[in-house]
Amino acid sequence: MIAALVNGALVNHTSKSVDLKERGLSYGDGLFETMLLSQGAVQLVDLHMARLQLGCERLGITCSEQLIRDDIAKLCFDRDSGVIKVIVTRGAGGRGYRSTGLTATRIALLYAQPSEAARDLKVRWCQTRLARNAQLAGLKHLNRLEQVLAQNEWHDTSIGEGLMLDTEGELICATSSNLFAVIDDILVTPDLRYSGVRGVMRAHVITVAQRLGIVVEERALRPDEFAHATEVFLTNAVRGIRPVVQLDEQCWPVGPVTNQLLATRRL
Amino acid sequence: MIAALVNGALVNHTSKSVDLKERGLSYGDGLFETMLLSQGAVQLVDLHMARLQLGCERLGITCSEQLIRDDIAKLCFDRDSGVIKVIVTRGAGGRGYRSTGLTATRIALLYAQPSEAARDLKVRWCQTRLARNAQLAGLKHLNRLEQVLAQNEWHDTSIGEGLMLDTEGELICATSSNLFAVIDDILVTPDLRYSGVRGVMRAHVITVAQRLGIVVEERALRPDEFAHATEVFLTNAVRGIRPVVQLDEQCWPVGPVTNQLLATRRL
Repeated sequence: MIAALVNGALVNHTSKSVDLKERGLSYGDGLFETMLLSQGAVQLVDLHMARLQLGCERLGITCSEQLIRDDIAKLCFDRDSGVIKVIVTRGAGGRGYRSTGLTATRIALLYAQPSEAARDLKVRWCQTRLARNAQLAGLKHLNRLEQVLAQNEWHDTSIGEGLMLDTEGELICATSSNLFAVIDDILVTPDLRYSGVRGVMRAHVITVAQRLGIVVEERALRPDEFAHATEVFLTNAVRGIRPVVQLDEQCWPVGPVTNQLLATRRL
Repeated sequence: MIAALVNGALVNHTSKSVDLKERGLSYGDGLFETMLLSQGAVQLVDLHMARLQLGCERLGITCSEQLIRDDIAKLCFDRDSGVIKVIVTRGAGGRGYRSTGLTATRIALLYAQPSEAARDLKVRWCQTRLARNAQLAGLKHLNRLEQVLAQNEWHDTSIGEGLMLDTEGELICATSSNLFAVIDDILVTPDLRYSGVRGVMRAHVITVAQRLGIVVEERALRPDEFAHATEVFLTNAVRGIRPVVQLDEQCWPVGPVTNQLLATRRL
């Protein structure tokens, strides 16, 4: 970590700066965003802010978008690149699930840009399933035990990501990426009505693809449909688009749709 | 809050004593226990420790039970009553869901005994549903957004608890209590195979009831079965057994099974 702000104030990033009664810690009662700072600009910042505000509304947390944008500007001042993580929680409060009249906590962290990694991914299946809850689906909230357990399932560093099903067997995402597959010339991505995170890069890719005339469908996706997929790729805000080239015995080329999207500037 | 320990060291309980990179905060990557200290003794402490250790095993967190017991002893030294909250997390670590080689964080907090509240409860239905995930069911982990949202659904202080269904419509629990109902002379409690927390008071009540010759069934429970329930009560570690006397238009007396269990010493 390079720098940290708590409620707008710079703190030593190795310091203990979080309240013992912080509800983010007690209950995962909050949200986060992970953003790429590149060439001095926070990529897709409006999409990140929109998702965060939607999450705040859904959880009933009040936090000024302007203050968060101010935090980010302060954190990134004079910086060219890195990864920004923003956490917004309901605040520090008493024992018990109920909360009233708390002031949201804002934490903004700046990390160095991640080291270069292979663009093309070998992936695996995760055993950990995603629970279904329409009320929380799509949000990047702090209840992320399923992703933690899934990502701790493998230690083979040649495997770049793990694919996750929900408890009904629908294919939802990878542990920290959204999923796209080209099936019958249509770009398909899971609709995330019951679980998963609505990634900002996912939203951006859908918009760009539609602009390029590619037919996009958000729908339920079953794992056996991979048999008919001609291209597969993953997206996230920090790594952008990463083609999936192998899943167990199945291999895919980096196909024309993926290449067309990869070629789009500043994707 | 009266006193706090972090990793065995006393800290000022109003201080900011938690690391910014704490995974309990980032992902809810940990567990907790809430215990009643009464007459100088931590009630049902062995059941609390057993659940916590089971949770650590399921999440792959290594934390010495003896150290946690030492924390509790240190925290309660010379104290007669109160509520103890222990949080164990995977530790403070880098950005990203994956974790390797972290040292668990132990937080132990002592609160004053809660103020006396009416024993008999009026309850309501919550709209917030519990997601199903057998891998996490039963554990008292830190991913508790569903309970937070459920408990924030009402502000009428005459309502003491809210009942929760899972996403398939099964009756699971109240927001911070387990549920029992007497139906056809059998004491029924939801089996919690897909969601909910396996409360230590729930386990204790099952044991005591069986010792008293009461037939207990852990099974799936549908809300329409309340029509045939002759007694309903809730349990939790701090409040013990609380009879439910009203749910919407339906009222129950405090019946013989509930009274028999309430009369059991030190329940």
